[in-house]
Amino acid sequence: MPGRRRPGARLAAEMDTRTGLPVVGMVGGGQLARMTHQAAIALGQSLRILAASPDDSAALVAADVHIGHHTDLDALRTFAKGCEVVTFDHEHVPSEHIQALEAGGVNVAPSAAALRYAQDKRAMRERLTELGAPVPRWAPVRTPADVAAFAAGTGWPVVVKAVRGGYDGRGVWFVDETDELPGVELIVEERVPLRRELAVLVARSPFGQVAAYPTVQTVQREGICVEVLAPAPDLDPELAVEAEQLAIRLATELGVVGLLAVELFDTGTGLLVNELAMRPHNSGHWTIEGARTSQFEQHLRAVLDYPMGDTGLTAPAVVMANVLGGEPSEMSMDERLHHMFAADPGIKVHFYGKQVRPGRKIGHVTALGEDMTRTRERAVAAARWLQDGIPMPDTRAGESR
Amino acid sequence: MPGRRRPGARLAAEMDTRTGLPVVGMVGGGQLARMTHQAAIALGQSLRILAASPDDSAALVAADVHIGHHTDLDALRTFAKGCEVVTFDHEHVPSEHIQALEAGGVNVAPSAAALRYAQDKRAMRERLTELGAPVPRWAPVRTPADVAAFAAGTGWPVVVKAVRGGYDGRGVWFVDETDELPGVELIVEERVPLRRELAVLVARSPFGQVAAYPTVQTVQREGICVEVLAPAPDLDPELAVEAEQLAIRLATELGVVGLLAVELFDTGTGLLVNELAMRPHNSGHWTIEGARTSQFEQHLRAVLDYPMGDTGLTAPAVVMANVLGGEPSEMSMDERLHHMFAADPGIKVHFYGKQVRPGRKIGHVTALGEDMTRTRERAVAAARWLQDGIPMPDTRAGESR
Repeated sequence: MPGRRRPGARLAAEMDTRTGLPVVGMVGGGQLARMTHQAAIALGQSLRILAASPDDSAALVAADVHIGHHTDLDALRTFAKGCEVVTFDHEHVPSEHIQALEAGGVNVAPSAAALRYAQDKRAMRERLTELGAPVPRWAPVRTPADVAAFAAGTGWPVVVKAVRGGYDGRGVWFVDETDELPGVELIVEERVPLRRELAVLVARSPFGQVAAYPTVQTVQREGICVEVLAPAPDLDPELAVEAEQLAIRLATELGVVGLLAVELFDTGTGLLVNELAMRPHNSGHWTIEGARTSQFEQHLRAVLDYPMGDTGLTAPAVVMANVLGGEPSEMSMDERLHHMFAADPGIKVHFYGKQVRPGRKIGHVTALGEDMTRTRERAVAAARWLQDGIPMPDTRAGESR
Repeated sequence: MPGRRRPGARLAAEMDTRTGLPVVGMVGGGQLARMTHQAAIALGQSLRILAASPDDSAALVAADVHIGHHTDLDALRTFAKGCEVVTFDHEHVPSEHIQALEAGGVNVAPSAAALRYAQDKRAMRERLTELGAPVPRWAPVRTPADVAAFAAGTGWPVVVKAVRGGYDGRGVWFVDETDELPGVELIVEERVPLRRELAVLVARSPFGQVAAYPTVQTVQREGICVEVLAPAPDLDPELAVEAEQLAIRLATELGVVGLLAVELFDTGTGLLVNELAMRPHNSGHWTIEGARTSQFEQHLRAVLDYPMGDTGLTAPAVVMANVLGGEPSEMSMDERLHHMFAADPGIKVHFYGKQVRPGRKIGHVTALGEDMTRTRERAVAAARWLQDGIPMPDTRAGESR
């Protein structure tokens, strides 16, 4: 049999005795854990999930659910027992807890040392600067005077970011000369004039294998990812390769195990790193149907030190559109889904099992096609219909899917 | 919004109050329910499963599991409460129990009246004969003399089948002149000289929409499906259309709701119907990665009266190979999986969470490619490696996937 043998076979205690397959634990029970569970089922596993509540997205659909909080070290320790590896649905587990698990012999992926760069924006900016990665001009700040001093070099307004705890646009503020500062630890960045946002997703295994998905374009609205176009349309092939190589280098330099999502600004003259995430990422949901290996399977393969799967696309154009909760409606989501399937039999849907609340991510849709413009129209029309009841055109007479 | 509205909106009692989406109940906790659960998660649901044991394939990975036996009418009645529709992982629920559920107002799909033709081979043969569908010569038999009388017209050996309860080659016997008959209710059929076996999978909704997948070739070993080639290679396009039209006609005439798998003999001069199944089917596992809509999603859409999904292929050649339990080995399945991923990053795997026992279906693999011969080699090599530890060639230097 060609191919290397893993340095050490796994311990029997970490294997399901029925199947001879390992158990992966994921801290956090959101939609990322929910979709990772779908991928785990195929790999012969049942994802073990630490959920804060039995109503969490993943807890609603999985068998092996522990209820406990990710800030409770005892809960984390109990949860980790019998797991081959512990990984994460979000960045909110305190770094010192992850270090304590590691000190106790738990295999955590990504490690506390790597995850720090996704948890602490100041540490991330410092490390990327050291590595010579392209980043916006930035500075750590404590006082309004610090911000003003920074803005003297860049001009107003500037972008102020909470060092810890932000996501989906939270923890990011556009600040003008007269605005007050939020009362948390901050960094300041120049406001970059950007053409668009891009993202690259890579997965890295402990062995050091890294696999990259094609560079995609992301579309944000109020800080929330609402569309992803794969591959990024009209992207200079050299820039695409540069983005993928940058992500591969960062995964390697930072020692990431599992997925690394690198969010980028395309300034029109080059690339700048905006954010890092080390988990399945909204910018990779398109891979479920749009790539030969979904990001969720790839994350599991990476943290288990399995070789990476094929990241090729399944169609020339793939578009994911998030479905946010809309205003209350007399028409149930069931009824809306029925009409959506009638209007476009090629749309794939993913609901997260969440109660509808205005603005909350409750699911996403994916369209696949030959032509990016048309495929994007289809995905956006389906998401708008599910979200706000805005009628979608009947596409069955249109291009074949 | 174009498209029709369902005649009656669902009752609130049958909807998940959190999501506004319906609950589907599936009787039986095997691998078909396991893979249906994966599809249900995307549709915003958690499949409700009636499993005989907590160790059943589907019970290991799902949240909403009732433990009870499919022959226990009280268990079935309790299980059905709150389900928008009840459907099946297998054909073994007694017809009278399904009728009792229906009489109590439960929405069952397929209905007892339709399912009868997948549960009772004599009823199936009679009905198909009435419909003028092509079938092997056959007769109901009770005594050795009946069989001999039949064989006088067809020659020995003949095929004797149990009217009820057979699957995976069980309940089917090749009988020669001097053999004894099994002591169950039987039909006899001519032994058809066949070129190969084909299968067509269609899904039908209560509204009457029917969607067909392309005709596939199935390869059986000792009555167990071991390979499926999609689309069936070198199939006369007219014969492919004939097979699909036949399956669509049967689904309609028999009043099937959900999936109908029609297993066919390709005799070289035409088609004959071998068996019918009304559930997700081994011959359709390739659709998970190989078609735009998996058979599991399609079954859920059909029983929920949603419009059907796109049945187009995602690659020119798709091959599924079953993984059976092999002899005990020092190398764990985890280790085997590791090597398989290294040797061929394009293979997709599905394990059923079952303990390995020789000859037991424990999973399947799927390969996608440009060329059927090469794609089949890859799928078979991966399955043999997982099953029996027969080394697979390293394909990474070969054709792109």
